[in-house]
Amino acid sequence: MTVTSVKKYQTQQSFESDPSAYLGKPEPGLRERLFVIIFEADTRAGKVFDFGLIAAILISVFVVMLDSIQAISERHGLALHRIELIFTIAFTLEYIARLSCVRHPIRYATSFFGVIDLLSIIPTYAALFIPELHSLIDLRLLRLLRMFRLLKLTQYVEEYTMLVQALVASRRKIFIFLSVVVIIVIFNGTLLYVIEGGPGTNFSSIPTSVYWAITTVTTVGYGDVAPISSAGRAVASFTMLIGWSILAVPTGIITTEMTVQRVGNRLTTRTCPECLTSGLDADANYCKRCGTGLPPYQQE
Amino acid sequence: MTVTSVKKYQTQQSFESDPSAYLGKPEPGLRERLFVIIFEADTRAGKVFDFGLIAAILISVFVVMLDSIQAISERHGLALHRIELIFTIAFTLEYIARLSCVRHPIRYATSFFGVIDLLSIIPTYAALFIPELHSLIDLRLLRLLRMFRLLKLTQYVEEYTMLVQALVASRRKIFIFLSVVVIIVIFNGTLLYVIEGGPGTNFSSIPTSVYWAITTVTTVGYGDVAPISSAGRAVASFTMLIGWSILAVPTGIITTEMTVQRVGNRLTTRTCPECLTSGLDADANYCKRCGTGLPPYQQE
Amino acid sequence: MTVTSVKKYQTQQSFESDPSAYLGKPEPGLRERLFVIIFEADTRAGKVFDFGLIAAILISVFVVMLDSIQAISERHGLALHRIELIFTIAFTLEYIARLSCVRHPIRYATSFFGVIDLLSIIPTYAALFIPELHSLIDLRLLRLLRMFRLLKLTQYVEEYTMLVQALVASRRKIFIFLSVVVIIVIFNGTLLYVIEGGPGTNFSSIPTSVYWAITTVTTVGYGDVAPISSAGRAVASFTMLIGWSILAVPTGIITTEMTVQRVGNRLTTRTCPECLTSGLDADANYCKRCGTGLPPYQQE
Amino acid sequence: MTVTSVKKYQTQQSFESDPSAYLGKPEPGLRERLFVIIFEADTRAGKVFDFGLIAAILISVFVVMLDSIQAISERHGLALHRIELIFTIAFTLEYIARLSCVRHPIRYATSFFGVIDLLSIIPTYAALFIPELHSLIDLRLLRLLRMFRLLKLTQYVEEYTMLVQALVASRRKIFIFLSVVVIIVIFNGTLLYVIEGGPGTNFSSIPTSVYWAITTVTTVGYGDVAPISSAGRAVASFTMLIGWSILAVPTGIITTEMTVQRVGNRLTTRTCPECLTSGLDADANYCKRCGTGLPPYQQE
Repeated sequence: MTVTSVKKYQTQQSFESDPSAYLGKPEPGLRERLFVIIFEADTRAGKVFDFGLIAAILISVFVVMLDSIQAISERHGLALHRIELIFTIAFTLEYIARLSCVRHPIRYATSFFGVIDLLSIIPTYAALFIPELHSLIDLRLLRLLRMFRLLKLTQYVEEYTMLVQALVASRRKIFIFLSVVVIIVIFNGTLLYVIEGGPGTNFSSIPTSVYWAITTVTTVGYGDVAPISSAGRAVASFTMLIGWSILAVPTGIITTEMTVQRVGNRLTTRTCPECLTSGLDADANYCKRCGTGLPPYQQE
Repeated sequence: MTVTSVKKYQTQQSFESDPSAYLGKPEPGLRERLFVIIFEADTRAGKVFDFGLIAAILISVFVVMLDSIQAISERHGLALHRIELIFTIAFTLEYIARLSCVRHPIRYATSFFGVIDLLSIIPTYAALFIPELHSLIDLRLLRLLRMFRLLKLTQYVEEYTMLVQALVASRRKIFIFLSVVVIIVIFNGTLLYVIEGGPGTNFSSIPTSVYWAITTVTTVGYGDVAPISSAGRAVASFTMLIGWSILAVPTGIITTEMTVQRVGNRLTTRTCPECLTSGLDADANYCKRCGTGLPPYQQE
Repeated sequence: MTVTSVKKYQTQQSFESDPSAYLGKPEPGLRERLFVIIFEADTRAGKVFDFGLIAAILISVFVVMLDSIQAISERHGLALHRIELIFTIAFTLEYIARLSCVRHPIRYATSFFGVIDLLSIIPTYAALFIPELHSLIDLRLLRLLRMFRLLKLTQYVEEYTMLVQALVASRRKIFIFLSVVVIIVIFNGTLLYVIEGGPGTNFSSIPTSVYWAITTVTTVGYGDVAPISSAGRAVASFTMLIGWSILAVPTGIITTEMTVQRVGNRLTTRTCPECLTSGLDADANYCKRCGTGLPPYQQE
Repeated sequence: MTVTSVKKYQTQQSFESDPSAYLGKPEPGLRERLFVIIFEADTRAGKVFDFGLIAAILISVFVVMLDSIQAISERHGLALHRIELIFTIAFTLEYIARLSCVRHPIRYATSFFGVIDLLSIIPTYAALFIPELHSLIDLRLLRLLRMFRLLKLTQYVEEYTMLVQALVASRRKIFIFLSVVVIIVIFNGTLLYVIEGGPGTNFSSIPTSVYWAITTVTTVGYGDVAPISSAGRAVASFTMLIGWSILAVPTGIITTEMTVQRVGNRLTTRTCPECLTSGLDADANYCKRCGTGLPPYQQE
């Protein structure tokens, strides 16, 4: 993969690829310096800010996790809440700073990361009124997705792009595959509901039976819902073998896509201007079908 | 994959590929217009009908699932039954319409989709006499398989065809593989029955032990039947490791098939007699480098 | 894969490949006719015998499985035992016939299938004295391995040979891989024994803990032995992620082997007689390293 | 893989690759003979010592495992402890011998295997004061990693090197992949804690919920922690399907890497300037078809 193709891939994303253009880099001055630090990671200050932000998110998530353990919460609850409050105030200030240093604050507020940034500070304030909402604070974990923006600046960029492209190129096959899985899962779930189901049994309703079927086809197999009759176990055995077999399909899809990206660079969309045969080799001088001379190949 | 090969694949299927030819398109008139709407999806009305049908099937399956949840059934049971009855009447009318607008109604009634269409309306009527049969109504889920016919008209056709072809090409290998799995599963199941089995134990009979072995080899592992003795656990450990190892085999089969379809059909040793360029595609008529006409390709 | 290479593979097996040569085909006469029917499958009678034998084995295994179900055994036990006795007598006669129609009976009796044939009839007789041994009768299931001999005569031969060759070619990699798994499993099992173990707990001994580790690494996860402490669960989480990651390794090994067999037929062991560079292409005229002219390539 | 590339790989490891250079081979004499036996495996005595050492480690681990089973410990405890003591003393002597026969004992003591060698003898002595530490003796299992050094001398070297290289080449992709898994697991775990959690429930804290999520995503599925509410089961179903789908990613990464190593390094567009043969190997000096000397290969 050349640098050009990586760049092209990045421009397909509106916000992450180039925040300056999308959100509007402000006039030179204090706001512009803030923008460079917060939204960009090319300067030293920008990198320090980004790595510091990721560290802050990780610590703050860790604090919330600790607080959920009853034994720890009872002893150190107050301290943990104070630490959390400090982080929330810091994130709030950061959110305000982000809003204030861009030309189009609405664009930022409605962007993917803008919404996540807001969601990561709301729960602490909301918990003042409705305590149950407090745990939602872990939504700020989603802010870690920013991490993948940093990856683009490092030696991980090629691997990251390749993984994403393999998934993107496979999306239609995976969609077809998941449709088949959904039909199998509902069908087998219903079958077991008919065989073993009824109020008071393990398979108390069709949704529960479908949950069992998903559990089985994905080979997770909790065992909280499991067949006890001979007929039910026969259907379950069949479901397991099906699940096992089709487990091979998504693996095959992804693997093939990755292999083609690595090995099969001969696959192009080059097309003969005369007979419209497509998929001509990059090094071809003549169309393999009609023998017409071809213009030189231009890769993007 | 070219359009030609997709078409060739489709003609191998009798009904789905070309209902006009198989079921007999009627004389121009009302019946013919009905035929085009119901059986074909190339016109606007045909597409609307097909997408509407899929929506109706999904909603009707969803209603049956809701009805199986006791809490909902007790409160909204009557409404749900009425909705279901309406759908069943609609599907019955559709079934009659399908029968009436083809030249060979018997061919449709005995075709795969004809049987499924009938099976999807019988349970509601049968439940009037035998209430237990009511849940079988989810058989109408199988009607969703029509969805894959629609896929053929969209940009999913290539992915769909490729997935099906990879499975078709692998069918013999998968059959051999499943035979080995069946032998392993019966053998290990019996072994554990000998070691731990007997009335009152977890492994109460050989079929139950085989069910356990399937559970284990497929790595589902419910845990409802599990060994408790040292010898049983040793055999179980061995069974798990075997299952894990042979899990790789179906994946390998499918992946290889897909990779060969994507990359492999281009690897030949065909060589241009004029400029000695080798590795020419199997379907080339002219050398891609010098434009010389090629003799027909002869595979061993 | 050409017919020649399949044959070559078969001659590596001593008994199955050519029973006539190994066991000694008798002089023409009654014994020779018996030999052709029993040991060979090229004549009509031979095929009928082989398919009949497989059917008999399947039915006899099915009878034993039925007999292990208490409810059925109580009602139809006597009938089932009689059917089983008939099959055992038939298999005994077959065993005697096999012994009597070969020139080297000892070779047959000590061959893999000779031992299995004997093991499949002993349990019924042994059960007359020690009833517990009765279930071992399912050892006769191993006789189904004969099925794979029949596969060689059908259109499955290529798929069968390819699967076996992929496994054979991967055996060293799989051995190394299993060594690593064994070390991981013992190590993690011991770790959990140290953390949670002791008399009366789930992890009552190191072998039990290793059983748990195998359960976890293979993603079977019965749940009959599971950690309850925080430290134990942390180690368990780590074990799961390791198991999940190395699950990819055997799949990769097998898949690569299969792909190479299908696509990578350019991989040869052809060696330059001058500089001893190996792996030269099948279509090369000159050594790619030293430029020496090569003798024509001869594939086996 | 040529011998050269294997050697090159080995020099990247400091200790294992060449203990003579790193630890300092002593002057000729008794110490040098000891060094050759203990640290090298090229002489007959060295091989005997290494295989004997591996046998001793295996037996000593087996003794500890037996001792952990209460029934055996009660009856044969004293004997087992004596055997273990003998092995520990032997390993202690070996450790002292290793220290004494190298020029830089500190380098050995701080090397990976030096630390493991020390850790494998400490627990027996420590258990004299703190009995609980006794089970840690299984740390000596890690000494079996020496086994892989022996593999280098055998016919397994190519397979071993290939497996290690595939993993090394995939490390960045696997790191990115595991980051995504960690985010998914914490996010889904927290979600279920919000839905079902609280003191006294299965999901008693966020770490416990994350443990459940890891259990689910890796398809282990113990079932000791499992959702019981409808919303919880819906989220669990979603988690399972995600886990199942991304299971394909590490497999794809490893498989592609292995395939590229086997097949892919031969696919180039390098062309002979004389006869225009294309697809020449990257390491070729002469055209394989016409024997012309080739200019050095320039990869982009």
